[in-house]
Amino acid sequence: MLEKADGARAWDTLERSYRTRLARGAAFATGKTVRAGDIVPFLEAVIEPHDRVCIEGNNQKHADFLAASLAKTSTETIHDLHIVQSNLALPPHLDVFERGTARRLDFCYAGPQGLRMARLVAEGKIEVGAIHTYLELYSRYFCDLTPHVSFVAADAADADGNLYTGPNTEDTPAIVEATAFKSGVLIAQVNRLVDRVPRVDVPGDWVSFVVEAPKPHYIEPIFTRDPAVITEVQVLMAMMVVRGIYEKYGVARLNHGIGFDTAAIELILPTYAEDLGLKGKICRYMSVNPCPTLIPAIESGFVEGIHCAGSELGMEAYTAARSDVFFIGRDGTMRSNRIFCQLAGHYADLFIGSTLQIDLEGNSSTATLSRITGFGGAPNFGSESRGRRHGSEPWLKAGAEQRREGAMPRGRKLVVQMVETFGDGMSPTFVERLDAWELQKTFDMPLPPVMVYGDDLTHLVTEEGIANLLLCDTLEEREQAIRGVAGYTPVGLARDREMVARLREKGAVQYAEDIGVDKRLATRDLLAARSIKDLVAWSGGLYDPPSRFRNW
Amino acid sequence: MLEKADGARAWDTLERSYRTRLARGAAFATGKTVRAGDIVPFLEAVIEPHDRVCIEGNNQKHADFLAASLAKTSTETIHDLHIVQSNLALPPHLDVFERGTARRLDFCYAGPQGLRMARLVAEGKIEVGAIHTYLELYSRYFCDLTPHVSFVAADAADADGNLYTGPNTEDTPAIVEATAFKSGVLIAQVNRLVDRVPRVDVPGDWVSFVVEAPKPHYIEPIFTRDPAVITEVQVLMAMMVVRGIYEKYGVARLNHGIGFDTAAIELILPTYAEDLGLKGKICRYMSVNPCPTLIPAIESGFVEGIHCAGSELGMEAYTAARSDVFFIGRDGTMRSNRIFCQLAGHYADLFIGSTLQIDLEGNSSTATLSRITGFGGAPNFGSESRGRRHGSEPWLKAGAEQRREGAMPRGRKLVVQMVETFGDGMSPTFVERLDAWELQKTFDMPLPPVMVYGDDLTHLVTEEGIANLLLCDTLEEREQAIRGVAGYTPVGLARDREMVARLREKGAVQYAEDIGVDKRLATRDLLAARSIKDLVAWSGGLYDPPSRFRNW
Repeated sequence: MLEKADGARAWDTLERSYRTRLARGAAFATGKTVRAGDIVPFLEAVIEPHDRVCIEGNNQKHADFLAASLAKTSTETIHDLHIVQSNLALPPHLDVFERGTARRLDFCYAGPQGLRMARLVAEGKIEVGAIHTYLELYSRYFCDLTPHVSFVAADAADADGNLYTGPNTEDTPAIVEATAFKSGVLIAQVNRLVDRVPRVDVPGDWVSFVVEAPKPHYIEPIFTRDPAVITEVQVLMAMMVVRGIYEKYGVARLNHGIGFDTAAIELILPTYAEDLGLKGKICRYMSVNPCPTLIPAIESGFVEGIHCAGSELGMEAYTAARSDVFFIGRDGTMRSNRIFCQLAGHYADLFIGSTLQIDLEGNSSTATLSRITGFGGAPNFGSESRGRRHGSEPWLKAGAEQRREGAMPRGRKLVVQMVETFGDGMSPTFVERLDAWELQKTFDMPLPPVMVYGDDLTHLVTEEGIANLLLCDTLEEREQAIRGVAGYTPVGLARDREMVARLREKGAVQYAEDIGVDKRLATRDLLAARSIKDLVAWSGGLYDPPSRFRNW
Repeated sequence: MLEKADGARAWDTLERSYRTRLARGAAFATGKTVRAGDIVPFLEAVIEPHDRVCIEGNNQKHADFLAASLAKTSTETIHDLHIVQSNLALPPHLDVFERGTARRLDFCYAGPQGLRMARLVAEGKIEVGAIHTYLELYSRYFCDLTPHVSFVAADAADADGNLYTGPNTEDTPAIVEATAFKSGVLIAQVNRLVDRVPRVDVPGDWVSFVVEAPKPHYIEPIFTRDPAVITEVQVLMAMMVVRGIYEKYGVARLNHGIGFDTAAIELILPTYAEDLGLKGKICRYMSVNPCPTLIPAIESGFVEGIHCAGSELGMEAYTAARSDVFFIGRDGTMRSNRIFCQLAGHYADLFIGSTLQIDLEGNSSTATLSRITGFGGAPNFGSESRGRRHGSEPWLKAGAEQRREGAMPRGRKLVVQMVETFGDGMSPTFVERLDAWELQKTFDMPLPPVMVYGDDLTHLVTEEGIANLLLCDTLEEREQAIRGVAGYTPVGLARDREMVARLREKGAVQYAEDIGVDKRLATRDLLAARSIKDLVAWSGGLYDPPSRFRNW
C-alpha cells in the first residue's frame, strides 16, 4: 500500500506567492520603507482577493493609517478579504465591509462599532465566522486562520525593519509570529523612522515593509478610572471582597478586570487592607494593564509585581521608574505582551471583574440587545484553568470547598463577579433570562454569547453580600444563593427566605456583618486616592494623565 | 488618608543588580562573547546565591554545556539557587541539588531522572515547589517565578547576540522574554558563532552573553516512532478512532499526543480514512511536533497545516521543503514555538493521547510508583478549554451530547485517551485506584498527580471499544461505560452486563461492529508506512532519520 510522494505537487505556493508580492510591493518602497503617499497602490500590489488579513486593533493600539488606507483601495483589485482581527474599534474597520473590500470576519470585540456591525451583518455585508476570546483568536492564527497579510503598529522602525513598540507591545508578537513564519506579508506602520531603535521588539528579519504614518497611531486610554467617580457602594463591595475573598483564601496572584468596582479594591489596599495586616499576604502579583488606580497600592509596597497585557496612556514614565514592579526592556521602558499576560492571569489564583447581567445559574453577559460586542479577554481570565496542576493556598482552599462528583480532590481557580444589584438606568442586573438568548437568535449565533459561565463562577459580590457558589450543593441552592444577594431586584425579592437563611449558616451566602465588614467605614475616605490629581501626587508626579482626565 | 510616596525607596534594585552582574561578567567576555574556558568563573561572577535560575531544558533542546558548568561552580559562591526549569533530563540538572548549588525546584517533567530526584527529595536536598504543566510554568515566569538568570540554547549567534535557534525554537521565546524584560541575565550557549545569523529568532538586544559550547547542544528525538513496532491491536484502535470519533464529529483541528497509538492513526489516514472519503474533512490542522509518522498523511494531502512546539531530529530538510504545511522562517527553515503550539492545541477541537493507568472515574495518570515524573504539556492539550467561545462542528456536537446541569447550552472539547486494556508486563491499565494516590503520600504532594481528569475526558478507546463519557448521565453510568471497554482486566470483568448493554443502546459504549469497523481489516497492511525506511521513501528522501532508527 506504500505510495511514493507525487513529485509534481508544489509545496511552497505560499512562499512563492510571498516573493511575488514582495517584488510587486518593492515598486513603492525604498528598501523596506514604503512611501506613505503610495500606500494605497502599494496595498493593491501586495494584497490579493480572498486573502486573510489581520489589522492590528488591540484594546489600545491601532494600525489606523493602514486600516484607513485599506478602505481606500480599489474593490476591483482587492475584494472578498477575510478579516481576522481582535478589536473592531474604528470606522474604517467596518468601511472595508460596507464597500466590499472584505466579506468574512473573525474577531473578538466590537465595542462602539457593534451597532453598525449588527446592521452590516443584517444586510449580508459581513459574514461573521465566530466571536472569539483573545487567546482563541491568536491560537487560530497558528491553526486555520493564519493571515496572508498583517498590519501592525509600532512606535519606531529602522531601515532594516526592526520595530520598537514602546510600552504598547500588546498583541504585536502574536500577529507577527503567525504571519512572518507562514510566508505572510508583514506591514508595520510606525510613528517615526529612526537610525537605531531604542530596543528591538520585533526583529527586522520578520518584517516585510515599514511605512511612516502621517500621524502617530491611534491609542485609547481604556484602563483609566477616575477615583472621583467611585461610590460608597463600590467601597463597601470592595471591603467585602478584601475580607470575604482575598483575606479568606490568601489571594496573592490575580487579575483585575476593568471598571470602577475593581478600581475601588485597588484604592483600599493601602488603607483598609493595610489596617487588616494584609500587606505581603494578598495582591502581590498581578496580570493587568498599568491601571493608574494601582499606583497607591504599588507605592505602599502592596503590589510587588505586575505583568501587563498592554500599557496605559500617561503611565509611561511611572512604569519606567518602577522597574522592580513592571516588566521593562533593556532601554528602560515597559514591555507588554497580551499573550503572556493572559496566560499568567489564566493560571493565577483569582479573576475578578464586573458584568452587566447575571442569570439564576450565575451565567453573566455584557451583551446588549441590538449590538454585537464580544468577549475580549475576560473569558480567558475568568474561566477555570483545567490544565493547571500546581498547588497554592487559595487554589487548594477553593478546591476543598467545591462540591464535585467523584473522589478525586482538585484545586479550583477563584472566579468572582462584582455587580450592583441595579445597573445604569436602574435596570436590574439579575434576570431570569439573559439578553444573550435574544442576541443568539438575532445574529444567528450557535450559542448565546455568555462572558463567564455559571459553572466557572465561584463568587458573586453585590452590595448586599457574597454568594459563594462553591458551597452550593444543588442547582436550586445555587439559584437561592444568587437570589440571596440580589437585593431588591425582582430576582432578589423572590428568594426563598428559609433556604437563604440555611445557605447563610453554611457560608454560601455572607453579608457584611458575617465577615466582619463594618459598613460604617464604607465611605470615600477609605480610598487612598480620591481623584486623578491624588494619583498624580502618589506617583510623585510621574503619572501624566491624558488631558481629558485633568480637571484641576 | 492620602500619603505621598516615600521618595527614599529604591524601585530599580533589579536593574542595578543587572548592571553590576553585567560588569562582573564582562571580565570574562569580549563584547557579549564569553570565552568557553572561562565559563565557570563567569557563572560565579553573574549568579548570586538564592537566585531563581532557569536552565532551558525542553522536550528536546538542552542548554547542556551551561547546565554542566553550573554544576562545577563553587558552592561557596553560588548556593541555594531556586531552579525554575521545565524538563529535568540530564544528570547535571540534579547534580546542582546534590552538591548544594541549588535547593528549591519548580519544574514540569523529570522522566528518566525521576528516580534520582525522588531520592534527593527524600534526603532533603531538593525542596519541590510544585510540578507544573508547560504553560503554567511559563506563565509563572511572568508572575512570581521570574528568573534572575536564564540559560538558553541556540544553533548560532552573531557578535551582537542575535540568536538563530533553527527549527528547535521551542521554549526559548518564553524564557527569553520573561528574563530579558525583568532585568535578568540571559546567557545563550550556541553551537557556532557566525558573522550573520540565517535569521533572527531572538534579538541580540535581549541577550546578555553568548558562549560557543565545545559541543553542539544536546537534542533528543523523542517524537520518532518506528512503524515496524505498531501492532494490529493498535491498528484496530486507530480505525475505531477514525470512524467513531474523527468521522462522527468531523474533527479537523486537533493535537496528537506522543506514542504508537496515535502514530497508528496517522499511518492509516492515507489508507483507511482516505477510502472512507474523509480527506479534506478530518485532520486538516494539527498542533504537534513534526512526527515522522505524519509524513504519509502530509504527502497524501490529508494534513494541510501543522504548527510545531519543537522540531524532531531528521525532519529538518523535510519540514523546510513543505513550507505550505509547516511554519517556516524567511530563511527557509522551520520555526517552532511551544507556547503558541500549546495554545493552538488547547483551543482546537480534539486532543488524543495515551496513558498508563485509568481509574473508574476516568482519571488517568502516567505517574509510576517510586519516581517523580510530571505532566509536560498533556494537561494543557488534554483539558476542557473553558475560555473558548467560537463554535465549530465537532465542538458544538460534543457540547450537544454532553450531560450538564442547567439550561445554558455549551460547546465541548473532545478529550480522548487511547489505551490497551493491559499494558507492559500484562499489568492492567484499568485500576480501582490510581498509583497517583500512593505517590501523593510518598512525595507529600497537595493532590494526587493526575494527568487528565475524568471530567475533562470525553472518550476512552481500547481494543474492546469506545466509551463515550459525554452520554453518561451519572457517575455510575460513567463507571460502567469504562468497565464496558476494560476487556479482561479485573475492572472489565466486574462490569454490570445489563447496564453496559443499556449504555451500548444509547451509544455510551460502542464496539467495532457498532460503528462499522471491520476487524478483519485491522492488519499492518493498513499502515501507509510499515518501517522507518518506508517513511524515508514517502518523504522522497527528505527525511533523514537518526542512525539508531536506521536498520537497513
